[in-house]
Amino acid sequence: MDEKKMPRRERKDAPAEDYLEGRNAVSEAIKSGRTLDKVFVAAGETDRALSRLAALAREAGAAVVQVDRRRLDQMSATGAHQGIIAQAAAHSYVSLEDILENAKSRGEAPLIILCDELTDPNNLGAILRTAECAGAHGVVIPKRRSVGLTAVVAKTSAGAVEHMPVARVSNLVGAMEQLKKAGVWIYGTDAAGKTDLYHADLKGPAAIVIGSEGYGMSRLVAERCDVLLSIPMKGKINSLNAASAAAVMLYEAVRQRL
Amino acid sequence: MDEKKMPRRERKDAPAEDYLEGRNAVSEAIKSGRTLDKVFVAAGETDRALSRLAALAREAGAAVVQVDRRRLDQMSATGAHQGIIAQAAAHSYVSLEDILENAKSRGEAPLIILCDELTDPNNLGAILRTAECAGAHGVVIPKRRSVGLTAVVAKTSAGAVEHMPVARVSNLVGAMEQLKKAGVWIYGTDAAGKTDLYHADLKGPAAIVIGSEGYGMSRLVAERCDVLLSIPMKGKINSLNAASAAAVMLYEAVRQRL
Repeated sequence: MDEKKMPRRERKDAPAEDYLEGRNAVSEAIKSGRTLDKVFVAAGETDRALSRLAALAREAGAAVVQVDRRRLDQMSATGAHQGIIAQAAAHSYVSLEDILENAKSRGEAPLIILCDELTDPNNLGAILRTAECAGAHGVVIPKRRSVGLTAVVAKTSAGAVEHMPVARVSNLVGAMEQLKKAGVWIYGTDAAGKTDLYHADLKGPAAIVIGSEGYGMSRLVAERCDVLLSIPMKGKINSLNAASAAAVMLYEAVRQRL
Repeated sequence: MDEKKMPRRERKDAPAEDYLEGRNAVSEAIKSGRTLDKVFVAAGETDRALSRLAALAREAGAAVVQVDRRRLDQMSATGAHQGIIAQAAAHSYVSLEDILENAKSRGEAPLIILCDELTDPNNLGAILRTAECAGAHGVVIPKRRSVGLTAVVAKTSAGAVEHMPVARVSNLVGAMEQLKKAGVWIYGTDAAGKTDLYHADLKGPAAIVIGSEGYGMSRLVAERCDVLLSIPMKGKINSLNAASAAAVMLYEAVRQRL
């Protein structure tokens, strides 16, 4: 997804309570420890106070995105954004270590979903719900070019956002390397995969990568997978929706682990 | 779903090309054989021409719904609805016999999805897509209290609406009886089901019922199922989204039939 196109899309999907407009609102949110998904800052703004605020947001873990001032105007409900609009997350994030620890404390082999640049909040919400139902230990999303834990995601998750740990990482490939070091096998989903999912061993420590809606897995991510799994396609359409693919993969893991 | 609440919902979801406003537009659509999902008629209207048009629409298979004239005004884009607005289907429907014939001609045991009053077009669209990918022979929806083949459904289906036969029936329970007579086993999905889906035999002729988003299967439908299957729930949330449940059930059938 082109990040420049995001504000308008998210504006459409996101209820107003997601958005914090103006310097004071954003500054107070950071001070109070509220998790921010994205901070949109007017491009070309040389104001030092604004730069400092952007730096604080970045330190606090938000993705800071420079956008045209006119786009900020379009996103703004109050008309008084002062060059900055933040999108608050509906829930706080955890670390990869927390997810691995979650599996360990339950005495189970890790079962993790990695989402590669999903942009549809309804897909991420549905995946969180299915992951929770399937007893997965966590979901990993990249900080950029991905929908975060927005209010729409929370709603579609049917409450799962409260129970399912979600880690937001700067770099999905880095997260994959970290998981591999922890002994987790990375399974990609790809129509061209030589192994069908029913012949994969999902009983051991497993992370399953779900590709983006439009493009599937990115090349770098696909190259880092230990195994590429295919879901059998019996008709004329050659791929499942991301959330449906996640459901099929997760429940095959459930079946194998019964 | 309360049918009185439908026009506003569908108006929000549906692109304008779904809607035919006014007597001539509706009359011409019926004459040309275009499939209409629903026809909304101003309640209390005693105009004979309008009653005749409603009767023609009903004969052609549309669900005719009486609504308050003010609701028609809200739905109307042109402001000139003349007491009637029809929602055209994005694709024509088939009969139950066509679906059974589809299985027979492919030399396969029928695999059919019955949707019990789904109201979210994104769910029906995703189910059509997954059903197509899983090689199912058809999808059955009830005429009333269910989303039809709207433009949103067609879009979410990613083209599957062109390939997956959909039957629209007056009465889902009647359709279940007809399928049973044809030797098809009806599997309901219910959290309280005593058999988990991995211990069901989905290799034989099977129809799988997916409950509505809010309420699951209706009582009458649940009572007519041959077997109630449960999908294992490992977390705190106690049900999957309708489209995810359909994906899990359909792909368990794919696995068993490999």
